Amino acid sequence: MRNDKPIIGITMGDPAGVGPEIVVKALTDRAVYERCRPVVIGDAKVIQSYITSRALDVEVRAIKDVRHASFRQGMIDVFDLDNVEMSALKPGEVSAMAGNAAFEAVTTAIALALEKKIDATVTGPIHKKAIHDAGHHFSGHTEIYAHYTGVDHYAMLLVEGNFRVTHISTHVSLRKACDLVKKRRILDVIKLLDGGLRQMGIYGGKIGIAGLNPHASDSGLFGDEEEKEIIPAIRQAIAQGFHVEGPVAPDTMFTKAVTGYYDGCIAMYHDQGHIPFKLAGFRWDNETGKMESVKGVNITLGLPIIRTSVDHGTAFDIVGKDLASPDAMLLAIDYAIRFASKHK
Amino acid sequence: MRNDKPIIGITMGDPAGVGPEIVVKALTDRAVYERCRPVVIGDAKVIQSYITSRALDVEVRAIKDVRHASFRQGMIDVFDLDNVEMSALKPGEVSAMAGNAAFEAVTTAIALALEKKIDATVTGPIHKKAIHDAGHHFSGHTEIYAHYTGVDHYAMLLVEGNFRVTHISTHVSLRKACDLVKKRRILDVIKLLDGGLRQMGIYGGKIGIAGLNPHASDSGLFGDEEEKEIIPAIRQAIAQGFHVEGPVAPDTMFTKAVTGYYDGCIAMYHDQGHIPFKLAGFRWDNETGKMESVKGVNITLGLPIIRTSVDHGTAFDIVGKDLASPDAMLLAIDYAIRFASKHK
Repeated sequence: MRNDKPIIGITMGDPAGVGPEIVVKALTDRAVYERCRPVVIGDAKVIQSYITSRALDVEVRAIKDVRHASFRQGMIDVFDLDNVEMSALKPGEVSAMAGNAAFEAVTTAIALALEKKIDATVTGPIHKKAIHDAGHHFSGHTEIYAHYTGVDHYAMLLVEGNFRVTHISTHVSLRKACDLVKKRRILDVIKLLDGGLRQMGIYGGKIGIAGLNPHASDSGLFGDEEEKEIIPAIRQAIAQGFHVEGPVAPDTMFTKAVTGYYDGCIAMYHDQGHIPFKLAGFRWDNETGKMESVKGVNITLGLPIIRTSVDHGTAFDIVGKDLASPDAMLLAIDYAIRFASKHK
Repeated sequence: MRNDKPIIGITMGDPAGVGPEIVVKALTDRAVYERCRPVVIGDAKVIQSYITSRALDVEVRAIKDVRHASFRQGMIDVFDLDNVEMSALKPGEVSAMAGNAAFEAVTTAIALALEKKIDATVTGPIHKKAIHDAGHHFSGHTEIYAHYTGVDHYAMLLVEGNFRVTHISTHVSLRKACDLVKKRRILDVIKLLDGGLRQMGIYGGKIGIAGLNPHASDSGLFGDEEEKEIIPAIRQAIAQGFHVEGPVAPDTMFTKAVTGYYDGCIAMYHDQGHIPFKLAGFRWDNETGKMESVKGVNITLGLPIIRTSVDHGTAFDIVGKDLASPDAMLLAIDYAIRFASKHK
């Protein structure tokens, strides 16, 4: 019998962070195995160690070839990189060894997806400093994926319920972000977002496009990027049949966006999108002094392969305390399954 | 018997907007008269017209001198400017006549406060285009107040529950906003905010200071304003005894700020503060297609007089429908009373 369920490669993330914990927790959810064939990419010893520490009734199967996976609930298949030195692993601490292991899991996932041995990739949290300390100079997963898939036109899409936001630029200074607000890039991102929405089953989705300046420049009173770049891009996108609206005053747009008024929206710079996204998807707990991710998912648009991710970090402060929630990981797996199903 | 309750001058706002409605509704609240002596500044005919249209059991007393006010509930005192031509007034429409009437109410309020005939001012919503059409070229109340009180160092403070945010700059382009992130201005705003918090009874309040760039530049990777301007300002503020923290990654800071983690916070530009503020204080209703202000208050810091305001607009689309909520006006009056009590 042919198995149509997509094979989802899930990277373990930094072995010193909460990645292994949320991966194992997510893979104890029966619904995951009902909808996909998951395989963890990382070090089998790390996964076994977490399971042993919690005395869980789950086995680990180390494999070197995806075809050898069992895809059975209760048996976690790990595409084993055997790259973590357990005696040197310090939970909750930054290290080059852990950073390198996390990095290799990501590049392996990319390679397996490009070779079509897996249908989609889901990434666990990595630590930027650990990656840098290991000699890999990328500002995040998105840039690693773009580099190893040879892609120039890509965008980060953040999803939290019906609020979906992608960005014209991300990890650049605010002055540089102003320079990057260009008609061509805006058109690219409209197309990337529209394509991403289609992969989620939303066709001809309504896309809100924020202004760069306050009040979207108030008809040119504060700044001219709306007139010179954003409005021409919107006109051309409408002529091409996209359902776009804007430029919208940024403070108004996101208040509407979080209610699902738009199917997707485009932020002109990192914080314009991240401030409302983190307000919607994260919760700061004043009692515990901790930031809790509720359920944000991070998707890279424009790649030849599928990549979704949790949008939270390694949470070093809660490693080993059994406090990490697998909710964001489950949602990232859900989106990977949906994208993979459309992709086929 | 001496009356210690502060005299609060409340401008009517644009007579074609919801200003008259929310002022009258607020002044039917018994608690207002128990805590202050309110006087409306505007056109008595407009207030009477609203009362007549709703058949309310309230009288209007037109006065030309604050000393003639009765300050009795059930009798609304109007410092009467007699500057609205009722036959030409079109509810829900922009007009120079209405804009001019609204503008004169504001300048009269400022003059009365400077002459100490009233203890504080509260402003109703005006329409920028109407003000401009009447030949008054200001981008808002804040700028009118700064001009007519001769003040250079001022800041807009937005308050919604325990979330209080003020800005390094407001109505300028984003590029210009980057230029305005200067150590001296940041120190000025820290002092203004700390002073504003004291007037609310918060002494030595914890102030969060956002970075300008994503991740607050991630130690200089994206932009140098944190290193050159913001960190030196923070160091000096700490040396001067202020309780400040930062620069904080903007997307993290506001997630904490809306929970009351900071007593006040400082945004580096308009939308950095307005996006989280509107998410916290406004609600977009997808069913009615309307933005509802919940309870945001706008306070001008640095003036020789007190000014608080609703933070919503004239809401021309709901004029005459009895739908406007006086909640924001009641809260603005509450803050004016608290500031006036500290001021005495």
